[in-house]
Amino acid sequence: MSNLDINHHTHKQFNTELKDLHNQVLAMGGLVEQQLADALAALTDGDRTRGDAVNNNDYKVNAMDVTIDEECAQILALRQPAASDLRFIVSVIKTTTDMERIGDEAAKIARMAVQLADQERPKNNYAEIEHLGQKAQQMVRDTLNAFARTDAEAALEIAQKDAKVDREYEAVLRQLITYMMEDPRSIRRVLDVIWAARALERIGDHAKNICEYIIYLVNGKDVRHTHPDEIAHELSKEN
Amino acid sequence: MSNLDINHHTHKQFNTELKDLHNQVLAMGGLVEQQLADALAALTDGDRTRGDAVNNNDYKVNAMDVTIDEECAQILALRQPAASDLRFIVSVIKTTTDMERIGDEAAKIARMAVQLADQERPKNNYAEIEHLGQKAQQMVRDTLNAFARTDAEAALEIAQKDAKVDREYEAVLRQLITYMMEDPRSIRRVLDVIWAARALERIGDHAKNICEYIIYLVNGKDVRHTHPDEIAHELSKEN
Repeated sequence: MSNLDINHHTHKQFNTELKDLHNQVLAMGGLVEQQLADALAALTDGDRTRGDAVNNNDYKVNAMDVTIDEECAQILALRQPAASDLRFIVSVIKTTTDMERIGDEAAKIARMAVQLADQERPKNNYAEIEHLGQKAQQMVRDTLNAFARTDAEAALEIAQKDAKVDREYEAVLRQLITYMMEDPRSIRRVLDVIWAARALERIGDHAKNICEYIIYLVNGKDVRHTHPDEIAHELSKEN
Repeated sequence: MSNLDINHHTHKQFNTELKDLHNQVLAMGGLVEQQLADALAALTDGDRTRGDAVNNNDYKVNAMDVTIDEECAQILALRQPAASDLRFIVSVIKTTTDMERIGDEAAKIARMAVQLADQERPKNNYAEIEHLGQKAQQMVRDTLNAFARTDAEAALEIAQKDAKVDREYEAVLRQLITYMMEDPRSIRRVLDVIWAARALERIGDHAKNICEYIIYLVNGKDVRHTHPDEIAHELSKEN
């Protein structure tokens, strides 16, 4: 943790607890990242087994969410943290909620992958989804790195990229609607692809939420519902 | 608050703060409820002005979310609450996040209503959406009542109803897909109706989340990711 010093406590046990919590959030993030990668591979490779595995592993993400929340409640009760420690705990509670929902969206993509595995594959082999998926994956990866280093500047940059994911999702959606209109028999199949695209767009939103908690953690400012350019302006005034 | 006694503090100011927080959450819930009602009316009446009003009011929901979170952080820092007070604060932080997202979904429905207002209306005047919307509204209303009375049993009953909303959403979706297949020129329009239906389904999910926080608040148990029947079994063991 570069910007947030959690080694300043006289109580050694408390340091250990905060570091442990930090590591657990990163471990949960790593699992969610893997789930997303597997779900996308299942979709583009038409790999039903891999899709099923993602669904079967979703409970692990949920379990980590519950465990981390319990630990946060414990620390709040026993250590009564203040200032940046308190902000850290609040950020963790919020971050894991969004991570759990990224996991849910990955599981949805995996369910779509399983349904699509049995059906005729389009000529481009879901290239649009693959591309949108790469963008969403990159956002999640960068967000976890920003959390690991408690880097508010990186978090702000990532949050600004969410608009790009949204625009790409809109373009994919328009393309998919055209497919449906050209071949109405494909409607059901294409709708599954639309659900997958929408899940990726939501994953971008959740990553953006986590970035906003990182900024709150570092700067003590709640920047949700604020335009990224405004946030950048606010942060530049402080530095 | 029937089941949760917040009058037990020797510090009068702290009592006032907790009661005030409780009232603020209910006020936010009331606003979100109104937004949802207006969004649905805009859709079924084809009322563009009302739809625009919902979108213009979304910032109010966001502002309440930020204010309540700030107050929670203040109370955590200054009062260092323990046991049920601490659970109350954690529940509030989580509840307002889900309320804010119900507000987002209502705004989405309003945007769809605005887009659909200019287009040809189906013969049934979106009766499916109206019906699904009534179910979702009822869930939100019941959830707010359960929160107001801190009633875990009511919360459990409401959480169990979410499966019904999900089933009705699936039925509506099948119906809408049939429309698209019968008349491919309607695809774009029907997709907007599908987005509205999906938003209602998600509102049910968010209401269920809030119910789970109420159960946690009363029983000190994290029941997320647990099947409602199992929760009922657990709670019955305790009573």
